[in-house]
Amino acid sequence: MKKQNDTDVIICGRRYTISGFESEDYLQRVASYINGRNEEFKRKNFYKLLDTETRNILMQLNIADDYFKGKEQMELLQKENDARNRDIFELKHEAIEAQTKLTALQAELDKLKADYFAAQKTIVRLETELSERKKEKQE
Amino acid sequence: MKKQNDTDVIICGRRYTISGFESEDYLQRVASYINGRNEEFKRKNFYKLLDTETRNILMQLNIADDYFKGKEQMELLQKENDARNRDIFELKHEAIEAQTKLTALQAELDKLKADYFAAQKTIVRLETELSERKKEKQE
Repeated sequence: MKKQNDTDVIICGRRYTISGFESEDYLQRVASYINGRNEEFKRKNFYKLLDTETRNILMQLNIADDYFKGKEQMELLQKENDARNRDIFELKHEAIEAQTKLTALQAELDKLKADYFAAQKTIVRLETELSERKKEKQE
Repeated sequence: MKKQNDTDVIICGRRYTISGFESEDYLQRVASYINGRNEEFKRKNFYKLLDTETRNILMQLNIADDYFKGKEQMELLQKENDARNRDIFELKHEAIEAQTKLTALQAELDKLKADYFAAQKTIVRLETELSERKKEKQE
């Protein structure tokens, strides 16, 4: 089981202690992301005109927007992945078909080679017989 | 170019007008997600003990956590996708190899068929000649 940790993070200049199963590294990355988002806002002129609640909602909206944008990207990626899986399935199917064809062709070739070899032997036998007949006739 | 819209959303019981390029549907989904997250918090006992700023930071942390978890999932999915792409590349390469082998084998088979056909003709010719010789001898 994962150990529960207490991690101190600084968000918007205030220290918060977070208890949970997340690693300290992960929580610091999340805190640093929120601070970055806050800094971005503070640089904008309209931000100064907003009341505290609106500022908070705006922050929530912006983080949630990142989350939803990520989700949309993930859905696209999932669709891509599904398409790739279908491609792989088809390609593997085609590979089996090609292998079956190769095996059949190889068997046909092997049989034909044996037949051809037998035919060559027949030719040699017939040619020998014929040349003996010719010799007999000459004698 | 996308049209900029003004969309009214209700977050935590207050109306906000958001100007931007996002569709109304998208913004309502984001707002509904934030409201859902808020409702979850309000049901928890510890929430009542927190000051407004801590509540806000806690909400930001939780939304950011969803975002980061999504990002991690996306990175995994991206890795999976990359692996699939490598699989597809290999499978396509194997398919080309199998096709080349099939073509070569078919050519070998065609040549052997022609040779075998020629050998069959030679056999017929030799057998005919031989049977003529036998007949000549008997006469």
